[in-house]
Formats: sequence, C-alpha cells, structure tokens
Amino acid sequence: MITAEAKDKLLDLHNRYVECLDENRLEEWPKLFLEDGLYRILSRENEEANLTAYWMYFNHQRLMRDRIVALRKATVFNIHRNRHVTGNVRITESGDGQFDMKSNFVLVQTDVEGNSELSIAGVYRDKVVFENGEPKFRERTVVADTFNPPRILAVPV
Amino acid sequence: MITAEAKDKLLDLHNRYVECLDENRLEEWPKLFLEDGLYRILSRENEEANLTAYWMYFNHQRLMRDRIVALRKATVFNIHRNRHVTGNVRITESGDGQFDMKSNFVLVQTDVEGNSELSIAGVYRDKVVFENGEPKFRERTVVADTFNPPRILAVPV
Amino acid sequence: MITAEAKDKLLDLHNRYVECLDENRLEEWPKLFLEDGLYRILSRENEEANLTAYWMYFNHQRLMRDRIVALRKATVFNIHRNRHVTGNVRITESGDGQFDMKSNFVLVQTDVEGNSELSIAGVYRDKVVFENGEPKFRERTVVADTFNPPRILAVPV
Repeated sequence: MITAEAKDKLLDLHNRYVECLDENRLEEWPKLFLEDGLYRILSRENEEANLTAYWMYFNHQRLMRDRIVALRKATVFNIHRNRHVTGNVRITESGDGQFDMKSNFVLVQTDVEGNSELSIAGVYRDKVVFENGEPKFRERTVVADTFNPPRILAVPV
Repeated sequence: MITAEAKDKLLDLHNRYVECLDENRLEEWPKLFLEDGLYRILSRENEEANLTAYWMYFNHQRLMRDRIVALRKATVFNIHRNRHVTGNVRITESGDGQFDMKSNFVLVQTDVEGNSELSIAGVYRDKVVFENGEPKFRERTVVADTFNPPRILAVPV
Repeated sequence: MITAEAKDKLLDLHNRYVECLDENRLEEWPKLFLEDGLYRILSRENEEANLTAYWMYFNHQRLMRDRIVALRKATVFNIHRNRHVTGNVRITESGDGQFDMKSNFVLVQTDVEGNSELSIAGVYRDKVVFENGEPKFRERTVVADTFNPPRILAVPV
C-alpha cells in the first residue's frame, strides 16, 4: 500500500524531471538521480529484440553532468524547444523501499521557425528510491517507440 | 462522494487498459469488461449526427475475444506499435454503483520503419461498475475526432 | 500543504476548462474565470524575449463573452474540432489563498474532412483563487511553443 504522501512525492519527481527539460534548465536534471543512478534510452524495437544498443547511457550523475556541459559548450545540434506530455502514470512498490513507476509520453519539438512536430512517443520505466526523504531515480529507462525520429536526439528525453 | 480508494481503482483500470493495448497483450483486453460489457468506436461526426455507424461494436467478452483471435491469426493489417497518452480524467458517480469516467487521448502509431504519426485523437466515455471488488467496464465508448485516420484501425483503441 | 479536497477542485476546474472547449460549449468558458480574470496567449519565443505580443488578451469576463459571441456570429474561420491532452499538472500554494497551477498540453485539431493534426503544444500557467467555495481562474496564461501553427487560432486554447 503506497501512501498518498509517497505517491505525491513520486509524481512530483516525475513532473520536475519534465519541467527542467522543457524549460531548458538542464543542469538540474542530473540531481534528480542517485549519484550512481542510471539513465538510458533505447528503442522499443531493440528492447524487444534484447539488443542493448542504447542511444544514451549514463550510469553516474557525473556522466550526466558531462553531457549537459557538452550540450552547452560543444555539441552542434538543431536548436529547438521541447515539450513533453505524459500520462497513464502507474506506481507499484517493489520491496526494499523501491518504487516502480511507468508513464507514457509524447515529446513535441518546436524549431526556430515555430513549427512543431511529434518527435518521439514512448514509455518511461523508473525505479525510484527515497534518499534523505527525497525521491531520486535509481534508474530511468526511456523506451522509444519511434526509432526514426525526424531529428537526431541530443538532449535527454 | 467518491472515495480515494475507488478513484485509485478506476484509474488503475483505465491505465491497465492502455497498458495491455500498448504492450500488445491484447488477450488481457476483454477481461477488463463485464462479460456482457460493451465496447464501441464511432466518429465524433457520426455521434453528433446521431448516426450509429460504428467502426467496432462488441457487446460481449466473447466477441472481443473473437476479434483478438482474428487479429492474431487471420487479419491482414499494417504492423505497427501503439502508444496512448491520455489525460483530463473525470470521474462522477451516477448512482446504482456505477461510475462514469471520461478521458481525452491521442494515439500515436509507429510503423516498422520506426516512423511515428498521430493516428487518432478523441475521448473515452466509460461506465464502470465493481464486480467482486474489482472495477470492470460495463461500457467503453471511443469517440474519435479523427474520422480519416492515416491507416485503417484494426486493433482496439 | 494543499488539502486533497482543494487539489481535486483545482484539477476539476482545469478539466472543465478543457471539456467546455473540446465540446464546443464555449459559452461556459468565461464563467471559469473571476469577473476581472485575465486570459492571454503568447508565444514562448515572445515570452523569453520579454515581448508582450499577445495572440489573445482578455482581462474581463465581458471581453471573453464578446469573443465567444463574435465566434458564433461574425468571425470567419476554418471549422474544426479541438481536442486537448494535458498532463504534468503541478500545483503550489502561493499565499493569500492563491494557488499556482501549471500543466503541459498538446492541442489536436481535426478538420471537416476528418484529418487531425497537431495544432500547438505548450504550457498553461494559472493563478487560481476560491470564490464562494468554487475555484476560479484569476489568470490563465497560455504559453505556446508553436508560434507557426498550421491554422490560425480563433478559438481560445
């Protein structure tokens, strides 16, 4: 039985995640994970085929921070704005104080001309634990249905 | 006054519905309905004109199971993956132990090349009752705004 | 600490807003605001540049009603149906009995031929207060990522 308070905190973590990406406050993104947390993106096709061809794979906050620094200073990629709409959040307790969370999403990207398009659709699969009373991602896996997105993905999803 | 527990169970029913379709566990889908439950899809245009031209109409679990068997064994249709994102869930109690639920949705389909596109957008309108403590759809009506979807709909929405 | 009851009422206000627009019951829309409530739409690009070039700006229910009368009787615009899917609702209390609410959205428009397309994506930013026990928008600001939508926006978003 998940308490209403725990549920609110988990939803809040999920919403802050989306908010910092959509508002381009990328520096806040690694802090939502445990220090040795795992973030990865793979396509649904590869997952179903048991292929571990990840689009992104960071298993430490340090690597996540590196990516953000690279995005800010070095990487050349199409400038765009992101907007996630997520729904169907399901939370279950998996023992050992870990919560499993799943949610569906669409990511809409808008280019510098103001045109928006569906970038990718998929599902978040999370393992969340509490550290000093605050929920943190032990793992967030993004499974992307779309494996041929209209533009290359540089920024975390 | 709807209890928090009843509300959680209704949302869970809705989320399991989406999950079994999106994860291609179609055999679980009929079980979310009463044995003589009703599932139907119609276009918003036809509904507004009071035309009962349904895209799908199953008024028994048996007919739903038939459709799934046909999809698995016989029907030829474009292979794709589905992803629903739903929101704006509204629940009201309508007496006699029945709950009315509405939610907006977009359905994104991804083809075998990995390209995603908006398939249809619309609204779910549900009548839900509890059977042995578990919520079941007495009726789920899908009203599709989109009546000219890019691909034919074979799988339940 | 926001009570569960207050939260439910705020979500209900948000959902009724979406519902009356999507169901074309536009006359109900102004009543969701305080009499001197503010509704405005601007692009994210303009907001980030601190430009106050609003697509719509109504700072009184009377002006909102005027717009609806104009839409019903005078304005020529492409006929379409609207469907919002919203998610990631965040509510915070900001003192003086005011609640701040944010939510992401996509708006899908369907034309008379039944073709649907993504119209705009963006975020709602709201200030909500209670008047006689009922929540009302003191302000709803729509920030549209999409500033080059496929069709002109005539109807409130």
